[in-house]
Amino acid sequence: MSLKFEVANTTEQGGRRGALSLPHGVVQTPVFMPVGTAATVKAVPQDALETLGGRGAEIILANTYHLYLRPGHELIRSLGGVHKFMSWRRPMLTDSGGFQVFSLAKLRKITEDGVEFRSHLDGSKHFFSPEHSMTVQIALGADIMMVFDECVETPASWERTRDSMALTHAWAARSKAYWEAHRHEVPWHEERGGQHQALFGIVQGGMYADLRRESADRLVEMDLPGYAIGGLAVGEPREVTREMIALTLEHLPKDKPRYVMGVGYPDEIEEYARMGVDMMDCVLPTRAGRHGLLFIREDPNDRRSAVVRLNIKKQDNAQDQRPIDEGCKCSVCQRYTRAYLRHLFASGEPLGATLNSIHNLSFYLETMERVRVDLAGA
Amino acid sequence: MSLKFEVANTTEQGGRRGALSLPHGVVQTPVFMPVGTAATVKAVPQDALETLGGRGAEIILANTYHLYLRPGHELIRSLGGVHKFMSWRRPMLTDSGGFQVFSLAKLRKITEDGVEFRSHLDGSKHFFSPEHSMTVQIALGADIMMVFDECVETPASWERTRDSMALTHAWAARSKAYWEAHRHEVPWHEERGGQHQALFGIVQGGMYADLRRESADRLVEMDLPGYAIGGLAVGEPREVTREMIALTLEHLPKDKPRYVMGVGYPDEIEEYARMGVDMMDCVLPTRAGRHGLLFIREDPNDRRSAVVRLNIKKQDNAQDQRPIDEGCKCSVCQRYTRAYLRHLFASGEPLGATLNSIHNLSFYLETMERVRVDLAGA
Repeated sequence: MSLKFEVANTTEQGGRRGALSLPHGVVQTPVFMPVGTAATVKAVPQDALETLGGRGAEIILANTYHLYLRPGHELIRSLGGVHKFMSWRRPMLTDSGGFQVFSLAKLRKITEDGVEFRSHLDGSKHFFSPEHSMTVQIALGADIMMVFDECVETPASWERTRDSMALTHAWAARSKAYWEAHRHEVPWHEERGGQHQALFGIVQGGMYADLRRESADRLVEMDLPGYAIGGLAVGEPREVTREMIALTLEHLPKDKPRYVMGVGYPDEIEEYARMGVDMMDCVLPTRAGRHGLLFIREDPNDRRSAVVRLNIKKQDNAQDQRPIDEGCKCSVCQRYTRAYLRHLFASGEPLGATLNSIHNLSFYLETMERVRVDLAGA
Repeated sequence: MSLKFEVANTTEQGGRRGALSLPHGVVQTPVFMPVGTAATVKAVPQDALETLGGRGAEIILANTYHLYLRPGHELIRSLGGVHKFMSWRRPMLTDSGGFQVFSLAKLRKITEDGVEFRSHLDGSKHFFSPEHSMTVQIALGADIMMVFDECVETPASWERTRDSMALTHAWAARSKAYWEAHRHEVPWHEERGGQHQALFGIVQGGMYADLRRESADRLVEMDLPGYAIGGLAVGEPREVTREMIALTLEHLPKDKPRYVMGVGYPDEIEEYARMGVDMMDCVLPTRAGRHGLLFIREDPNDRRSAVVRLNIKKQDNAQDQRPIDEGCKCSVCQRYTRAYLRHLFASGEPLGATLNSIHNLSFYLETMERVRVDLAGA
């Protein structure tokens, strides 16, 4: 078994309290996954990640596109995979590279075979096909890898979205075939007793309910170990995101993990988890932290009160001796004041990004821990 | 008692194994002090500083000039002083601001009274006199503060150096008078049982032996709690630095701490400690770390072998699975490979600066720990 998913309890709303067993450990779900783009969660040391909010991050994400370009997947393979490369012993997930190819890279040329693009780093030419994405992700060796999908621009017409979806389905089938034939090549195959990576499908279909349903149905037929919902949180209103998630979830199997990619604000991840989403990831807590935006509770003593953003740059924090969030138990709130964090930010000191990111990630993990307790039932 | 210095052993060479008791704790000497310019040792969290090399940094330095400009000494005073501001519970030292006024600030106008200068941040006009430096340093509230001195440009003629030295002596007397009259104003005076800060004098005299001797004699007459040797490591050959230190040490009292400011390389701090210097500080370990330069031992299994610099950027580190220094016990060498650190540096990832700085600081503290063991005698 390379992936085992057990649901301990499901609420009336559909929210699930579960546990996802992977080659590098067990992940309590629903889970929020910090993003470690280039095999590092920006500005946060691994030992801090391991203790965030007590339990620490149980799974993190790395970006295939970035690691493929730098330092290169062959180098990471030769060093034993991304876990050893970055000294992260717990589960990891890699995306397919598709999203970054379509959002960061230049001069893309898409054919049925794959995507030709130029690196955003140095303009060099590259080609990603489903098979190549699998090759790269197997070399990286995360516990979970994703099928290579096309990400349609937003907004897109129904016809454009349907055609893109069809390509995504064809690519998913090719991804699966390649994964089945090559998954024993993962760097830790032997040392982990013959285990391999799990491959997740990605439901596309834009903002069209009929296409979302069709995409879910086609992918479920492929019988993959897990399913993601992609192409959301790309600028559409939040109600549309929620609607697309809700209707897609209905078409996904209840005994497999369900992952919504790239969301979101703390109140969103809570909401989607209660609807039955098991996994989410987002750069928001770290990116916002680097920009001095900190998530706090409106009433620090009520951890269910509204999420508020504190802009640490503001002058009124200059003499504020309170922690970021008086009800937060994170290492930053236990030690540092708003006045100090404002000073670090105003002075461009790198420690500011580190401490802000640790708080925001802790806030996300605390939120999910509370949701998990709720979902476990009375 | 606000400063107590006890020498447990002195070697034939003059090296001393001692302990310096200050209001915020005891410092084992000889000691290397990491520099926390803007109330943060760049890119290194306080909890990492506390555990560097086991014992952690027992004393750190902060820069008066930087904190005066941003966030301002009155703000730090209102928050209880720099210890509380940055959440650092152990001893600290502030410089006088003189060195930065003379090296960073623009459009300086020096009179007997003090120095008018423009901020390197925003061009605003400021005036520092000995009395004002004391006011600022008392507001910051480090355990040790420094007299305000003029730093002469290098090279400087004998006459120019003599005149500058005379000004430094006059300013030292004014610094002392102000400190004696106002030292009870330090933010923690009451809560630390009426203790106050210790003021150190600074021996100047450029590269002229007769002036160094005269400067030491004049300052010793002032009977200050400790003495620094300033104006060194400003571009002169290392033999000259060593010679100036050696001859100045002869003229400083043996029962008071002796501090050489702004040095140096790991082999230098070891050498000066063995000559009888008790305290040193330098930005080198952190600055070099941010630039990807790491200090290691030529033979990792022989901690007395030569110091070598490893340039982490180099291609030949790309696949190197060894730690930075195989004989180093620091948290970075216990966990991360050269390959990973090279990747972080090449990708501009902030974690690189943090890990490199932690290693270099650990290397410095390990070096001093070994010297202390040697100096304690058989």
